[in-house]
Amino acid sequence: MRRLVTLLGATGSIGRSTRDVVAENPDRLKIDVVVGGRDAAGLARVAVETGARFAALADDAGGDALAQALAGSGIGSGAGRQAVLDAVAMPSDIVVSAIAGAAGLEATFAALTPGRVIALANKESLVCAGAAVMARARAVGAHVLPLDSEHNALFQALGAEPISAIRSMTLTASGGPFRTWSAERIAAAKPEQALAHPNYAMGAKITIDSASMMNKGLELIEAYFLFGLNHDQLEVLVHPQQIVHGLVTFRDGSVTAGMAVPDMRVAAAHCLGVDGRLDAPATRFVDLVTTAPLAFERPDLARFPALALAIAALKTGGAVPAILNAANEVAVEAFLAGRISFPGIPALVDAVCSGFGAGIGAPVDIEAALAIDHEARNRARLLLSRGTFTVT
Amino acid sequence: MRRLVTLLGATGSIGRSTRDVVAENPDRLKIDVVVGGRDAAGLARVAVETGARFAALADDAGGDALAQALAGSGIGSGAGRQAVLDAVAMPSDIVVSAIAGAAGLEATFAALTPGRVIALANKESLVCAGAAVMARARAVGAHVLPLDSEHNALFQALGAEPISAIRSMTLTASGGPFRTWSAERIAAAKPEQALAHPNYAMGAKITIDSASMMNKGLELIEAYFLFGLNHDQLEVLVHPQQIVHGLVTFRDGSVTAGMAVPDMRVAAAHCLGVDGRLDAPATRFVDLVTTAPLAFERPDLARFPALALAIAALKTGGAVPAILNAANEVAVEAFLAGRISFPGIPALVDAVCSGFGAGIGAPVDIEAALAIDHEARNRARLLLSRGTFTVT
Repeated sequence: MRRLVTLLGATGSIGRSTRDVVAENPDRLKIDVVVGGRDAAGLARVAVETGARFAALADDAGGDALAQALAGSGIGSGAGRQAVLDAVAMPSDIVVSAIAGAAGLEATFAALTPGRVIALANKESLVCAGAAVMARARAVGAHVLPLDSEHNALFQALGAEPISAIRSMTLTASGGPFRTWSAERIAAAKPEQALAHPNYAMGAKITIDSASMMNKGLELIEAYFLFGLNHDQLEVLVHPQQIVHGLVTFRDGSVTAGMAVPDMRVAAAHCLGVDGRLDAPATRFVDLVTTAPLAFERPDLARFPALALAIAALKTGGAVPAILNAANEVAVEAFLAGRISFPGIPALVDAVCSGFGAGIGAPVDIEAALAIDHEARNRARLLLSRGTFTVT
Repeated sequence: MRRLVTLLGATGSIGRSTRDVVAENPDRLKIDVVVGGRDAAGLARVAVETGARFAALADDAGGDALAQALAGSGIGSGAGRQAVLDAVAMPSDIVVSAIAGAAGLEATFAALTPGRVIALANKESLVCAGAAVMARARAVGAHVLPLDSEHNALFQALGAEPISAIRSMTLTASGGPFRTWSAERIAAAKPEQALAHPNYAMGAKITIDSASMMNKGLELIEAYFLFGLNHDQLEVLVHPQQIVHGLVTFRDGSVTAGMAVPDMRVAAAHCLGVDGRLDAPATRFVDLVTTAPLAFERPDLARFPALALAIAALKTGGAVPAILNAANEVAVEAFLAGRISFPGIPALVDAVCSGFGAGIGAPVDIEAALAIDHEARNRARLLLSRGTFTVT
C-alpha cells in the first residue's frame, strides 16, 4: 500500500528533497497534497509533477494565479490561511513540515493528528512552541520524526535507548563560510559572502543563520524539546566535513553517531521510510575512504556570538527562545537588505532578548507563541527604525 | 538489587576490564564466580579481590595450588573441565565469557541458560560454532551481548533496527603495528615487532592476530553469526585512531557508528549495564576535539593475506571458519616460538584450509566444533613437522 504524503513547503529545498525521494519510490509513496508560500507558478508545477490532488498557497494574493495555472489539470486549489489548514486536514499518512519560519507553526500544529507521522523540518515549531508541540503530539498520538539532518542523526543514533541513558548530545556544525575568518573580517562580511555556504544549497535565511551559527543555536533549542534533555546536556562541535551530523554520548562512555552525506534526501528518506527503510541510489552513501579525515573543533563563541545568545536563551527558557528566533528573522532580513552589518544580527537579537521576555513563560499554545513572535518582531523593527544598528 | 556476575577468563585482559567496571559499581554488580585457565595464584588473588564465592581453574594440575592459595578464605574452588562446568552452572545474572581460544567454547555454550545475559568475548564460540551457539541462545532465551569493542559498537549502532534495514556493516581495524610497512618488511617481522600493538595491551595471541589482521577476519566471521547478515554485507576499514569501532550503513544512506575510547571497559560497562547504563569516570569519554582527525582506509589484502583467507572462509562457510581458526592458533604459536616466519602464519592457515574442510558442514554442536578444531590442529602440526613452513 502506498503511503500518502502531505508536503508543506513544497517549493523549498526540503520540499525538493522530499519530492526526489518520493519519485524514487513510486510504489511506496505518493504526494497527495502540496502547500506552498508565495510562489503560485512553482507550486502549480510541483502539484502537476507529483500528481497531487490539492494545492494550497499560504499567500491569499496568489490564489487566482494558482487556480489558473492548474486549470484543466483536475487538481484542486485554494489560497490563504484557511486553505492551508484545509489542506493539512486532508487525510494522509505522513506530513512533511518544511515551511520556513514562524509561518509554518500553525500548519505544523494542525498536522498533529492521531497516528500520523510528522517529518518536522520547521524549526520554529520547536523553537517557539516546542513544549506545546511535543505535548500535543503525545496527547493525540502523532509521531514526530526530525527531518533536519542533525536531529535526524541524533534520533537514529539514540535508537530505542531511554533518555536517562544519555550523558550528552552533540550537534555538529559545518562552521559556515566564516569558520576560519577573523572577527574583523566577519564584521565586514557582505550578504553575498555570508550566502556562500560550503556544503548545502539552502534558502537565504538559513544560509545566513549558518554563517552566524544562529542556525546551530536554534537547532540546540529544537533538540532540547525533541529529546527532553537538560540544556546543559546539549553541545555543539564544528565538523567541517559534515559527515557526522550528531552524536549521542551515553553515561557508560559509549557513543553512537549519526552520519550521512550532506544531502537532505537521506534524512527525508529515513522519515518517509515508515514501513521500512527506502533504498537510496548508490551515489548517496558515505564513503569514508574518499572523504577527508573527520575533524572536530569547539565553536568560537567570541567570533560567533549568535550561538552564545541561543545557548543563553535555551538556559533562560520561557519565551526567550521564541523571542530570539523572531528577532533573528528580522535581523537577517535587515542584513540581507543592507541595513545592518553582519555583527548587527546578534547585536539586534541581544537587544530584543534583553529588553523583554525574562518574565514571560513558555507559550502554552500556538496563539501564545504567535503573539510572542509578533511582539518580538515589532520590537526588533522598532529598534531597527531607531537606527542604532544601521550600517554607517 | 545487585546483579551477580560469573567471570570466565578472570585473569586475562578482558577479565581485568570487567573487574574494574564491577569495582566501580559495587552497588549494582558483584562478581560471584571466577574461572581461570592455568594461573592458579592469579585466579586466587582475583577471587579474594572480588569477593567471589567460587573459583574454578581449567587446568587440572593447578587445583592444589588454587586450593592452598584460597585456604581459610571461605572461597570454594575446583579444577579441571567438570569444575569449570560446575562453576558455569552456578546461578548468576550475567556471564562474561572471556576465556581465550577454543577452550572457552564449551563453557560459553554451557552458560546459555534461560534469561541470562552472556557478554561474549570468546571469539571461538562464534567463529567455530556460531550457528549452534546463536540457535541455542534463541532456543533457551539467553541474551548474547557482544563484548568485543567492534561488535559491541555494531550492536549499539544497530539499536532496535531490523537486520532487513541494513545495507552493510563495517568493522574497523587499527591496522596494527605493520599498517604502513612494506610486504618485504612484514615478511621479516620478528615476534617482538608483531607484539607492539599501537593501542591495546592484550594477550600475545590476539596481538599477533592484530598484526596479521587475522583478528579482523575472525571478527568478520563473529559478526556474521551475531547479526545474521550475508557475508558480502560485511566489510573492514582500517581506522588508525580507533575511536569508531563499527558502522552500520542502512539502505536509505543513513549510517550509525559506534564509538568509544580504545578501552575495553566501555564495552564491558555496556554489557554489564543490563538494568540501565553504568556511569563511567570522566576520563573514559571520547573527546573528538583532542583526538586526531578520524581517517579511514581500505585494508590491503595483498600485504595482509590472513584477512583475505578469513573473508574466503566466511564465504565458503561450513567448517572452514573453524578450521581457519584452529590452524591460525597453531600457526601463531609456531611464529611466537620462532619456528615460522610472519608470512608463514597465513601460509600455514591456507594450507590447512585448502587441504580439508570443503565438504564438511558447519558444526551442529560443540562436540562437532571441537572435533573439527582438533583435526585442524593436528593437520597444522603435521604440516609444521614436515618443515615446509620452517624459517630457514
